[in-house]
Amino acid sequence: MKTSARNQFKGSVEAVNLGAVNAEVKVDLGSGDHLVAIITNESARNLELAPGKPVVALIKASSVILMTGEGAMTSARNRLCGKVVACTEGAVNGEVIIGLPGGNQLTSIITNESIRKLGLAVGGEVCGLVKASSIILAIEG
Amino acid sequence: MKTSARNQFKGSVEAVNLGAVNAEVKVDLGSGDHLVAIITNESARNLELAPGKPVVALIKASSVILMTGEGAMTSARNRLCGKVVACTEGAVNGEVIIGLPGGNQLTSIITNESIRKLGLAVGGEVCGLVKASSIILAIEG
Amino acid sequence: MKTSARNQFKGSVEAVNLGAVNAEVKVDLGSGDHLVAIITNESARNLELAPGKPVVALIKASSVILMTGEGAMTSARNRLCGKVVACTEGAVNGEVIIGLPGGNQLTSIITNESIRKLGLAVGGEVCGLVKASSIILAIEG
Repeated sequence: MKTSARNQFKGSVEAVNLGAVNAEVKVDLGSGDHLVAIITNESARNLELAPGKPVVALIKASSVILMTGEGAMTSARNRLCGKVVACTEGAVNGEVIIGLPGGNQLTSIITNESIRKLGLAVGGEVCGLVKASSIILAIEG
Repeated sequence: MKTSARNQFKGSVEAVNLGAVNAEVKVDLGSGDHLVAIITNESARNLELAPGKPVVALIKASSVILMTGEGAMTSARNRLCGKVVACTEGAVNGEVIIGLPGGNQLTSIITNESIRKLGLAVGGEVCGLVKASSIILAIEG
Repeated sequence: MKTSARNQFKGSVEAVNLGAVNAEVKVDLGSGDHLVAIITNESARNLELAPGKPVVALIKASSVILMTGEGAMTSARNRLCGKVVACTEGAVNGEVIIGLPGGNQLTSIITNESIRKLGLAVGGEVCGLVKASSIILAIEG
């Protein structure tokens, strides 16, 4: 499986919480990092998701919001914090890569204006926010 | 709290409707504008959301779809209409800023091709569509 | 109705499955292609969605993840496969258009790096993944 999603995190299912239409799936990335995804119940059934099952979490770089500063709480179920390891401006959008403590890297595409507003530079502390509903889970064939 | 989200609207919680997995939260922006966000129940509990609580709604510019013309209805719970106050083309994507009646501004990133197809220019009428599931709610620390 | 969404697919409602907060709506694109959208119950009611009702499905090009290769399964409810009919790199992001068997075209915006990593070129086989929650349904006025 090769996808255009810049973030592909290997992990295993920790828990599946079925709702009326949607299901909440917790994924252990095995490095101290965890993710929560919201998918439909039908997908959870089709993929036969259950605790222990290996999955790959796909997150588009454009789905990540970056945040700096202390104390704020958000509704985003995924908050992945680390240090900026790369920061490149483009024409309108730029790319910021965060090194996470467990060794994974989170790539985000934000506007150049946001890069400047947040003062992002290599070595700086930053958190990536990802809504649970922005994550696709995959099972390798 | 500083985030890369180009749209950060201050408001207060109007209502919280808990579902099986997800919750629907209505936010009053205090200027005649309102937003609806879908977050998980767990987030609604963690943030202790209740009517009157101050929150900040974060919306990525890339989550906004622009629409012109009359009469169409959409499933997007948030439809924020106003006049174009800025319209800038980039290499592939461009930025369009809408001035809302209550004084807020909504920034969107769409493709240059869409800017031309919709004939967008400063002063023109346009609506920004935002799915409730694209909104992150934050509480300042 | 004119919108900035690069993908606007005409179809008709096949089924509506109401949940606690969200509803799952199946749409027949009439060419052998089908879509599943997750919208709120309130939107389903406001739009008076019922089997047979004509709708337009709006999908932002930036909501599409491209995938190549066989065997993988994903939680994305929409998997639209075909041949690349156009592939253009920009400064950071590029545009890839997929011709679907039924005649529709699916436009996606991904990073140049992903275009190269997947080896995308005109004529190649590729699938576009779209989360059900990324789709907005519209009714023309």
